[in-house]
Amino acid sequence: MKFTVKQIATLLGGEIAGNDSLPITGLAKIEEGKPGDISFLSNLKYEPFLYTTQASAVIVDQSFQPKKPVSSALIFVENAYSAFTQLLEEYYKQLSFSRVGVEQPSYVGDGTTVGERIYRGAFSYIGTNCTIGENVKIYPHAYVGNNVRIGDNSIIHPGARVLDNCIIGQHCVVHPNAVIGSEGFGFAPQPDGTYKTIPQLGNVILEDFVNVGSGTTIDCATMGSTIIRKGVKLDNLIQIGHNVDIGENTVIAAQTGISGSTKLGKNCVIAGQVGFSGHLTIANGTKVGAQSGVGKNVVEEGTSLNSSPAFGLKESMRSLAIFRKLPALEQRLSNLEKKNEN
Amino acid sequence: MKFTVKQIATLLGGEIAGNDSLPITGLAKIEEGKPGDISFLSNLKYEPFLYTTQASAVIVDQSFQPKKPVSSALIFVENAYSAFTQLLEEYYKQLSFSRVGVEQPSYVGDGTTVGERIYRGAFSYIGTNCTIGENVKIYPHAYVGNNVRIGDNSIIHPGARVLDNCIIGQHCVVHPNAVIGSEGFGFAPQPDGTYKTIPQLGNVILEDFVNVGSGTTIDCATMGSTIIRKGVKLDNLIQIGHNVDIGENTVIAAQTGISGSTKLGKNCVIAGQVGFSGHLTIANGTKVGAQSGVGKNVVEEGTSLNSSPAFGLKESMRSLAIFRKLPALEQRLSNLEKKNEN
Amino acid sequence: MKFTVKQIATLLGGEIAGNDSLPITGLAKIEEGKPGDISFLSNLKYEPFLYTTQASAVIVDQSFQPKKPVSSALIFVENAYSAFTQLLEEYYKQLSFSRVGVEQPSYVGDGTTVGERIYRGAFSYIGTNCTIGENVKIYPHAYVGNNVRIGDNSIIHPGARVLDNCIIGQHCVVHPNAVIGSEGFGFAPQPDGTYKTIPQLGNVILEDFVNVGSGTTIDCATMGSTIIRKGVKLDNLIQIGHNVDIGENTVIAAQTGISGSTKLGKNCVIAGQVGFSGHLTIANGTKVGAQSGVGKNVVEEGTSLNSSPAFGLKESMRSLAIFRKLPALEQRLSNLEKKNEN
Repeated sequence: MKFTVKQIATLLGGEIAGNDSLPITGLAKIEEGKPGDISFLSNLKYEPFLYTTQASAVIVDQSFQPKKPVSSALIFVENAYSAFTQLLEEYYKQLSFSRVGVEQPSYVGDGTTVGERIYRGAFSYIGTNCTIGENVKIYPHAYVGNNVRIGDNSIIHPGARVLDNCIIGQHCVVHPNAVIGSEGFGFAPQPDGTYKTIPQLGNVILEDFVNVGSGTTIDCATMGSTIIRKGVKLDNLIQIGHNVDIGENTVIAAQTGISGSTKLGKNCVIAGQVGFSGHLTIANGTKVGAQSGVGKNVVEEGTSLNSSPAFGLKESMRSLAIFRKLPALEQRLSNLEKKNEN
Repeated sequence: MKFTVKQIATLLGGEIAGNDSLPITGLAKIEEGKPGDISFLSNLKYEPFLYTTQASAVIVDQSFQPKKPVSSALIFVENAYSAFTQLLEEYYKQLSFSRVGVEQPSYVGDGTTVGERIYRGAFSYIGTNCTIGENVKIYPHAYVGNNVRIGDNSIIHPGARVLDNCIIGQHCVVHPNAVIGSEGFGFAPQPDGTYKTIPQLGNVILEDFVNVGSGTTIDCATMGSTIIRKGVKLDNLIQIGHNVDIGENTVIAAQTGISGSTKLGKNCVIAGQVGFSGHLTIANGTKVGAQSGVGKNVVEEGTSLNSSPAFGLKESMRSLAIFRKLPALEQRLSNLEKKNEN
Repeated sequence: MKFTVKQIATLLGGEIAGNDSLPITGLAKIEEGKPGDISFLSNLKYEPFLYTTQASAVIVDQSFQPKKPVSSALIFVENAYSAFTQLLEEYYKQLSFSRVGVEQPSYVGDGTTVGERIYRGAFSYIGTNCTIGENVKIYPHAYVGNNVRIGDNSIIHPGARVLDNCIIGQHCVVHPNAVIGSEGFGFAPQPDGTYKTIPQLGNVILEDFVNVGSGTTIDCATMGSTIIRKGVKLDNLIQIGHNVDIGENTVIAAQTGISGSTKLGKNCVIAGQVGFSGHLTIANGTKVGAQSGVGKNVVEEGTSLNSSPAFGLKESMRSLAIFRKLPALEQRLSNLEKKNEN
C-alpha cells in the first residue's frame, strides 16, 4: 500500500485537517501507530492515544473535536470505525490478489486444465486430469493430486495437500500444511492381534466459502465423501475423520477432533479441543464448550453442551462449581456422621 | 478401474442377471450408487435401495430373490459382502501401486541407493547415504534426510518428513505432513531463568507395517531410538515424545500425546485426545478412553482406564454419573443438615 | 564424527587405560553401546553395564576403580558426566552446522539479501524483499514469504512455513512443518447465518532463541504482532492464536492451545494439552498442569493451576481425590438419610 493522506481521504469521502501529503504505507491500532501508518479513533476510551500516537493520519468521526494539539493528520468521516474497516478490507483484497502468474519450476500433470489469472508458485505440484478454476492461487509447495477439482477464487496455501479425487468449491481457503483427503484410519483386527488395512476409496468435498486452518487434517471417506458444507470455518490443527459431514456455516475452533461418520448440523459453534465420538448425529445450532467430549447424539436444536463427557451447559456449570467444594462437602458429611453416631 | 459387468462377474466367479456389457468405473454404497458404479447388498435392511439405486451393477448373495424389478445388473455370488471386499482391496491395490517412475525435478544425494520399481515424485528430496528399498513410493514434496533406511513397499506421502538417521521398515505408510525424527523437546533450566538446548542425537525406528497418520510428529531419541514396533497404527495429529517405545500392534487414535520415555505395551487400544505423562510403563493390552490423562504406570495387562487423571473405567463411569448429580447430592446433604440442627 | 580414543581423551584432558587407537563414530548410553561408540559411567547404579558394554570407550571419573576386567578403553576425567555432555554438545554443533551452501533448484525472489555461510536446500523458497542473516539454514521445502526477516544462526527446517512480513530473531529454530504467520481465525457473523472474513494484516515476531516445535501453528495478528518473546520454547503441535503475547523464557509442552489475544507472562511452565481462553492475562511464573483449561486471568505470580476448568493445584488434587470416591460418598449419604428417616 502506498497512498497519500489526501488520496485516502478522497477514497473515504472525508475531510482533512493537517498535512495531506504524508505517505501512508500501513494500518495500525492507534496505540501502536508508527510514522507511515493510518489509524482510527472510534471508542473515546482510546482518545488519550490520539495525542501521543506517531501514526501519520487518524480517521475520526465528523462530530469529534480534539481537546489538545494532535500531530497526526486527521480525516473526518461519518463513521470512523466503518471507514477504517473499509480500508482494511481494501488492503486485504490487494494483498490476497497480489500474487499472479507462474513461477518455475512448477509441475502440472497431463490432462489438467487451469483457468485465467491463476497463480502457481515455484515447486507447486498439480497432478493429472485436474480442473482448476479462475483466479485460483496454488502457493509454493502446495500439492494437488490427480482428478482434483478446485473452484474459482480459491487459495491453496504453501504446503497444503489436496489428495486424489477431492473437490474444492469456490472461494475456499486451505491454509498452510492442511491435509485434505488423506486415508481414513480404518483397520480390521485379525485373530492374531495384527490389523488389516480397510481400503479407503472415497474423497473429501469442500463446498463454497469453506476455510480450512493450518495443519488441519480431513480424511477421505471409506466410500463416498467426507463433506464440509458451504460456509464452514475450521480453525488450525483440527482432525476430521472419514465420512464426517459438517453442516453449513458451522464454526469449529482449533484442535477439536471429530471421529468417523459423525454428522454435525448447520450453524453449530464448537469451541477448541473438543472431541466427538464416531457415528453421532448432532442437531443444528448446537454449541459445545472448550475441551468437552461429546459421546451421544444431540437431538434438540440449539442445545448447549459442556464438560467431558458433555451434558447440558447450565447443569455442568453447577456440577463443576460443587466439584471445587468437594473437600468441604465431604467434611460436612463426616460431621453429620459423627453427630449421628451418638 | 475400467471393466465390464461380465469381467467382474468372471473375476468373482458369479452369475449375471441383466446387462453384462455395462462399463464399471467405481465402487459405491448401494444408497449412493451412480451409473458406472458397482455396489452390493448383504444386510437386507438395505434391500429397498436395491429397487431405486442407479448403480450399474449390484453384487448379491446366491440365495437372494428380488421382490420387485431391478434396473441394475445383478451378480450372484456365494457371499456378497466378501466379494465386494475382495473388489475393494483389488481396486485399492491398483490405486496404491499406480504411481511409478521418476518425475523431475527431484533430488537424490550422493551415496544413496534406490531399489527397483520406485516412485519418486517431482520436488521429492532424498539426502546422502540413504538406502531405499524396492517398490517404495516417495511422493512429491516428501523429504528424506541423510543416512535414512526405508524398507521395501513403504510409502512416504506428500510433505512427510523423515529426518537424518531414521529407519523405516517394510510396508510402512507415512501419511502427508507427518514428521519423523524431529528433535525432542529437551531444555535444561539455567540459573538465570533461560533454557539451554539438550542435544538430541538419536533417531526414530519404525518397524514393519507401521502406519503414521497425517500431521503426526514423532521425536527422535536424545540418544538411542524412539521405537514404534511392528504393526503399530497411529492416527492423525498424534505427538510422540523422545525415547518413547510403542509395543507391537498397538493402535492410537487422533490427537493423543505421549510424553518422553514412556513405554506402551503390545496390543493396547488408545482412544483420541488422550495424554500420557513421561517415563511411564503401560502393560500390554491396556485400553484408554478418549480424553483421558494417564499419569501412572499400568501394571496389570488388559486394564481399562478412563478420565483425567485416569483410573479404572468402571469406577470412573460411576463417579462421572454422580458428578452430574452433584447439585442434587448437595441438596440432600443440606436437607439432612437442617434436620440435624434441631 | 570420526576420532580415535586418543584424540577424544586429549580433547577432554583425560587419561587412557586400554586401546587408544580405536575409532569412535558415535555416542551411546552405556547399556546400548556398540563397537565404535563412546559412553560414560557416572551413576554407579549403571556400573554392571561397564563389564558387558560393547562400547569402544567409556568415560569414567578419575576416582573410579573397576572391580572386574573391562573390554572397553577407559578415559579417566575429573567429572565423567560433564565430559560426556561436552562431547555431546560438540557433536551436536558439528551436526547442526554440517549443511552449508546452495542446492538446486531453489528459489529466491527479487530484492532479497542473504548472509554469509547460509544453507539453502533444494526446493526451498524465499520470497521478495527478505533479509536473511548469516549462518542461517533454510532446509529443503521450507517456505519463506515476502518481506520476512530472519536473524543470524537461525534454522528453518524442512516444510516449515514463514509467511509474509514475519520477523524471526537470532538463534531461533523452527522445526519441520511448523507454520508461522498464517491468518488468524477471525470471522464476523452476518444476519443470514454466514460468516464474513475479518482481514488479518498483522505478523508474527519471534524474538531471539525461540524454539517452535514440529507442526506447531502460530497465527499472525489481526493488526500489529503476535509476539513470542526471547527464549520461549514451544513443543510440537501447539496452536497459538492471533495477537497472543508469550513472555520471556516461558516453556509450553505439546498440543497446548492458546486462544487469541491472551498474554502469558515470563517464566511460565505450561504442560501438554492445556487450553487457554482468549483475552486473558496470565501472571509471570504461572504453572499449569496437563490437560487443564484456563478460563480466567491469573493475577498472582507463581500460581499453580490444574484441572478443567483450572483452579489451584492443591485444591484440585483434593477435589480429584474425592471425585474417585463419589460412589462411596453417595452411599454414606444414603445411609445417613435412612438413619434419619426414622
